[in-house]
Amino acid sequence: MTAAINPQDILWVAVDWGTTRLRAWAMGEGGTVLSSASSEDGMGALARHEFEDALLRLAGDWLAPGIPVIACGMVGSRQGWVEAPYRVVPARPAADELVSAPAKRAGLDVRVVPGLKQTSPADVMRGEETQIAGFLALHPGWDGVICLPGTHTKWAHLSAGEVVSFQTFMTGDLFAAISGHTVLRHSVGTEGREGTDFDDAVEEIMTRPERLASRLFGLRAQGLLEGLDPAAATAALSGMLLGAELAAARPYWLGQQIAILGANSLAQRYARALALQHVDATIVEADACTLAGLTAQYKKATS
Amino acid sequence: MTAAINPQDILWVAVDWGTTRLRAWAMGEGGTVLSSASSEDGMGALARHEFEDALLRLAGDWLAPGIPVIACGMVGSRQGWVEAPYRVVPARPAADELVSAPAKRAGLDVRVVPGLKQTSPADVMRGEETQIAGFLALHPGWDGVICLPGTHTKWAHLSAGEVVSFQTFMTGDLFAAISGHTVLRHSVGTEGREGTDFDDAVEEIMTRPERLASRLFGLRAQGLLEGLDPAAATAALSGMLLGAELAAARPYWLGQQIAILGANSLAQRYARALALQHVDATIVEADACTLAGLTAQYKKATS
Repeated sequence: MTAAINPQDILWVAVDWGTTRLRAWAMGEGGTVLSSASSEDGMGALARHEFEDALLRLAGDWLAPGIPVIACGMVGSRQGWVEAPYRVVPARPAADELVSAPAKRAGLDVRVVPGLKQTSPADVMRGEETQIAGFLALHPGWDGVICLPGTHTKWAHLSAGEVVSFQTFMTGDLFAAISGHTVLRHSVGTEGREGTDFDDAVEEIMTRPERLASRLFGLRAQGLLEGLDPAAATAALSGMLLGAELAAARPYWLGQQIAILGANSLAQRYARALALQHVDATIVEADACTLAGLTAQYKKATS
Repeated sequence: MTAAINPQDILWVAVDWGTTRLRAWAMGEGGTVLSSASSEDGMGALARHEFEDALLRLAGDWLAPGIPVIACGMVGSRQGWVEAPYRVVPARPAADELVSAPAKRAGLDVRVVPGLKQTSPADVMRGEETQIAGFLALHPGWDGVICLPGTHTKWAHLSAGEVVSFQTFMTGDLFAAISGHTVLRHSVGTEGREGTDFDDAVEEIMTRPERLASRLFGLRAQGLLEGLDPAAATAALSGMLLGAELAAARPYWLGQQIAILGANSLAQRYARALALQHVDATIVEADACTLAGLTAQYKKATS
């Protein structure tokens, strides 16, 4: 928490509630952030009846009766506080209707943002739609493709203020599973990284995606026979998996204006891999988009 | 253990010592198996000084002083009982020289079979070389490609009694990591399986290997949106990963005579996936090859 604030200045509370983390912001006049807090009470760690207490533990001091809480992310999944059914694309990323979460505490007003789904090919998102809504609020009229890197990276095609289509790649999830739970755990680190080994691997797998299956064990063999440095092996594994994603996501990024939401090293790796394909991408700070998207939802909900 | 035997009938002891299991056979006149035993004392669970005790716990009753023990597999790795340095291919699969393991018990005579390595592309095997030697002992003069399915499947090209080249695919390891340690753990089972979903996935990924990255999360989304049956999702995941392997292993199986070593459902899936490519493969019982290979090594070591 930041310095003490006057609870009377709080107009509403913004919440980003994912699988592993819960983050909240006390919001004042004109979109000011008065205070922020976070905890490890992610959706994955909570039973349905535990969400209210988790929120009150983190942000109870901010929550005078009637203060609206606008929450996005996995909190609205079937395993969340309340299921907020997916809206189907094409759709505007900001929802017209939010779903109220049942609460025991009198005056606790929690409204959950629904995710988006796509019928064919089947795909889903929860939370990213709010970041996209925020990006559009910050860049009105923008058309192009948004890449949202993460454990499950989303690529979304935006046109005329709507999400037209999107596709999820579980590249980060795969990296964690392969680096932590296969024989490669002896050869690579647990954090992806850049470098010429990364670049070479991106290029190789983008050009010859079928090589992914054969090159993986090669990292182990090169470690045993050639003393391949773990840092180089890690960069190569990052590059191979990202190369496989970019090969499959080509219809999304080819010839499009690209924005990458995220200011971390993962976003940097996406930008670098795209630059190898001579594609310029703009990196935009993701938290700013999350807050702008929750603000857009708050305005819709209270106007 | 099988019924009591006369220790004086034992001429030597065959041992297959892998990462997760230790298996031993008491061998009599003319290659007869007098008894067999196995334990979970795999190489991965043992420190270097614990191998001797693990062997004696399992097979101590068979081991009169001077009885040779011939052992293949990870027991000869750097983390094993004694390092048996790789021989480089092209090479005959049966080694001329075995490596003696240091023992405290007087008269304990353990000899370890070295694995094979390939310089470019870097690759290694330990244990499979003995199965290949056994296959060749059972099928003298055979030329073609041997597929040894497992956690780390090997494809080996044999010509004129030598392993000319080989390549490892960690498809089984990947299946376990993805089905157990990614979001797909909610959607798929932990054992690969056949079916039309398997066939369709093999065909799709063999034709368009770049689709692997995009199809994986689709299994999760189809589960959420379409109620995709976990058995179907499991078969599809098996098929995708095996399709990716076969796409990369094409230079091994295309236009070659193929033998698959293994009589389990995994070997059946390889045969089925190859049949979809109109490739006939012969399935050969792997344990018979292991024993024939250890027997070939015993004969070389004592002749």
